[in-house]
Amino acid sequence: MPNTKKPDSSRRSERSRQAIFAATRAMISEAGYGKVSIEAIAARAGVGKQTIYRWWPSKGTLIFDSILALSEDAEGQGIALPDTGDIEADLKLVMRATVAEFADPDFERPIRALTTEIINDLDLVTQYQEKLARPMDDAKKARLRSAQQAGQLAADADLDLVLEVLYAPLFQRWLHRSGPLTAEYADALVDITLRAFRP
Amino acid sequence: MPNTKKPDSSRRSERSRQAIFAATRAMISEAGYGKVSIEAIAARAGVGKQTIYRWWPSKGTLIFDSILALSEDAEGQGIALPDTGDIEADLKLVMRATVAEFADPDFERPIRALTTEIINDLDLVTQYQEKLARPMDDAKKARLRSAQQAGQLAADADLDLVLEVLYAPLFQRWLHRSGPLTAEYADALVDITLRAFRP
Repeated sequence: MPNTKKPDSSRRSERSRQAIFAATRAMISEAGYGKVSIEAIAARAGVGKQTIYRWWPSKGTLIFDSILALSEDAEGQGIALPDTGDIEADLKLVMRATVAEFADPDFERPIRALTTEIINDLDLVTQYQEKLARPMDDAKKARLRSAQQAGQLAADADLDLVLEVLYAPLFQRWLHRSGPLTAEYADALVDITLRAFRP
Repeated sequence: MPNTKKPDSSRRSERSRQAIFAATRAMISEAGYGKVSIEAIAARAGVGKQTIYRWWPSKGTLIFDSILALSEDAEGQGIALPDTGDIEADLKLVMRATVAEFADPDFERPIRALTTEIINDLDLVTQYQEKLARPMDDAKKARLRSAQQAGQLAADADLDLVLEVLYAPLFQRWLHRSGPLTAEYADALVDITLRAFRP
């Protein structure tokens, strides 16, 4: 069944890409954004640094892609939220997974290191918004629009505000380590968001 | 009317205290938490460093007190939210003021510098929770409890979650510079929180 597989060169590229992403995330966790170099990432990933320069124009875009890759599916095919027609069930599935990720040191450490940088760097936070936050938010908003069409969410709800009410409490609790990150908390955030924005 | 004035020594102490707080906030904005010393704060405030050591046991407690002082009244008499009996009006007043503060460079810069430190320091974030976040949250919860007793807020509402829904969107938007910090935004956060937690 050769058509179900990617050609060898494409699979090799994907392996290199994932190795580069893993090396990038590991190094920003350990050393912080400022001290990580393309050379060091290339050495750790076992690729030539020209490979990295060919695929990414800057360290920032590589780092944001490496974080975005955590949310892609196994084929590297981008991000989409589940849509079973039940917004409460779908959001609880997503938020439970998200809360579990932020409770996982391997996931949260590179994002904490990155957050430290972007909150103090106007250029980097702009790149973050464009390369990482917007694609994630667009995927979430597509699911919220489907819920609006199904009459499960107010048709006039400001979707940026919906996403803030859903995610910002988790972001703040994680960043300030101010409370437990549990499945019950994930469910409570979904319940309260749907209550605030119901039709 | 001598009884309406503080004695001279008390007024002098309060002037020194405010000068120390102002110097502390200015220096953490400019240099960051790690590089600020008690000696440098004392020199800038025009007091002896023994004065500072007599009043504060550590740099952390001084810094958190200097931020907390921004929310005290003019007499340095601690924090309390207005209670006119109308929770919507009172919260909108408070949130409009809070949003304006986070849009003000003189206010937000020391808090941004401090946030950068506490999110990466387990000991410092514990001090932050005890010395700064908890006193602020306690004052806010007292107002929310009054609203619960007046039937304006669900009696079984989790007040930690209420505060997260009210403040965390502002915190995230400010920290990530991801949207405008306006009076309309302050009002929207109050409206959505009261809707989510109404009886």
